[in-house]
Amino acid sequence: MPPSTETLTAERILEATEEVLRRHGPAKATVVDVARALGVSHGSVYRHFRTKAALREAVTKRWLDRTTGMLAVIAEADRDPEARLREWLAALFEAKRRKAGDDPELFATYTVLTGENVDAVVEHLTELTDQLTRVVQDGIDAGAFTVTAPATTARALFQATALFHDPGYAGEWEKPGAEEEFTALLDLLVRGLKT
Amino acid sequence: MPPSTETLTAERILEATEEVLRRHGPAKATVVDVARALGVSHGSVYRHFRTKAALREAVTKRWLDRTTGMLAVIAEADRDPEARLREWLAALFEAKRRKAGDDPELFATYTVLTGENVDAVVEHLTELTDQLTRVVQDGIDAGAFTVTAPATTARALFQATALFHDPGYAGEWEKPGAEEEFTALLDLLVRGLKT
Repeated sequence: MPPSTETLTAERILEATEEVLRRHGPAKATVVDVARALGVSHGSVYRHFRTKAALREAVTKRWLDRTTGMLAVIAEADRDPEARLREWLAALFEAKRRKAGDDPELFATYTVLTGENVDAVVEHLTELTDQLTRVVQDGIDAGAFTVTAPATTARALFQATALFHDPGYAGEWEKPGAEEEFTALLDLLVRGLKT
Repeated sequence: MPPSTETLTAERILEATEEVLRRHGPAKATVVDVARALGVSHGSVYRHFRTKAALREAVTKRWLDRTTGMLAVIAEADRDPEARLREWLAALFEAKRRKAGDDPELFATYTVLTGENVDAVVEHLTELTDQLTRVVQDGIDAGAFTVTAPATTARALFQATALFHDPGYAGEWEKPGAEEEFTALLDLLVRGLKT
C-alpha cells in the first residue's frame, strides 16, 4: 500500500474504482482493492461511500454523466435547432461507439454496472430525452419544426435511434454502412419534424 | 413409442420438433426425443433432415417464415401505401409481442435458435425490408411519399422501429405507454415520408 499524499476525495475514489473495475472485472473487484490502489484503509473509502453498492452506483452515475454533460453543451448551444439535433444524435452515437470500441473491457464492465443500477440508467435516459425535448421545443418556437408535442416527439426520436446508442447494439456500430444508415435515418426523422 | 399411422412428412417432423423444443428446452432436446414423439425411429427423421443442426435450422426458418408470410399479405395488398405501411409495422409489433407474451418458453427457445442460425435471421430480415421497400416504392409511385431511395428508406423505417420488433426489447412491449409510443414514432416516420 503506497502512502497517500493527496486528500482523499470522492472523485479520487471514483477514479480508482473505475480503474480497479477495469482491471479485476465487476465480479471480482472489491472495496479493499480500491483502498489498496489509493494507499488508504478501506474504512477511509467507506467514509465517502457507505456500502460497496453505493460506490458502484456512484461510479456508474459518473460514467453516464460524462455523456450527459457533453450532450448538454450541444443541446443548449445558441444554434439552428435542426443542426443542433443532428449534432446531438451524432455525438451520442459517436460517444457510445468510441466507448465500446476503444476500451471493450471497460464497456463490458459498465454493461454489468448499468444492469445493477437501473434507477441511475432511467434517470440518465430522462435527462437525455429532456435535452432532446429542449431542442425540439426550440425548433417549434423558431418555426423550423411543425410537430406539436415536443416531449412525445423527443421520445420518438430517441427511440427511433436506439440502434445507434443502445449498448445492446454495440456489435453493429463498426459494421460497414453503419454511418450511412445512421444518416439516412436522421434525414428521415428530420423530414418528419419539418413537414 | 406409439405406432405411427400418418405418412411422415417434413412438416410433421418440424411440428413435433417445435413441441419437443418447447418441452425440453433447446439445450436438452434431441432427435431421439422428436422421433419418440412421432412414434418413428430416429433414422426416419434423419432421412428428412440429415443432421440435428439442419433440423434446428429448418424449424427456425419455419418460425420466422410464419411472420414473413403474414406480413407479405399486408405488403402486397391493393391499398393505400400509407395505410399499408402503418398496418405492416403494427402487425409486426403485434406478432412479436404476442409471441413473446403468449408463450414465453417457446419465445426463449427461439431466441436461442435464432442465435444459432444467424444466416436464417439475416435472410428473414432481408425479406422483411424487401416487403417494406415495396410499400415505400408504391407510395412513391402513387405520389404519396416524396422520398427518393425506397430501399434505403425502408431500411431506415425498419431500424427506427427496432424497439418494437427486436426480441431484445421484448421486456418493454407490455409496459404502459408502449402502444402510444409506437404510434407517436409511426406518426413521425410517416410525416418524414410525406414531406
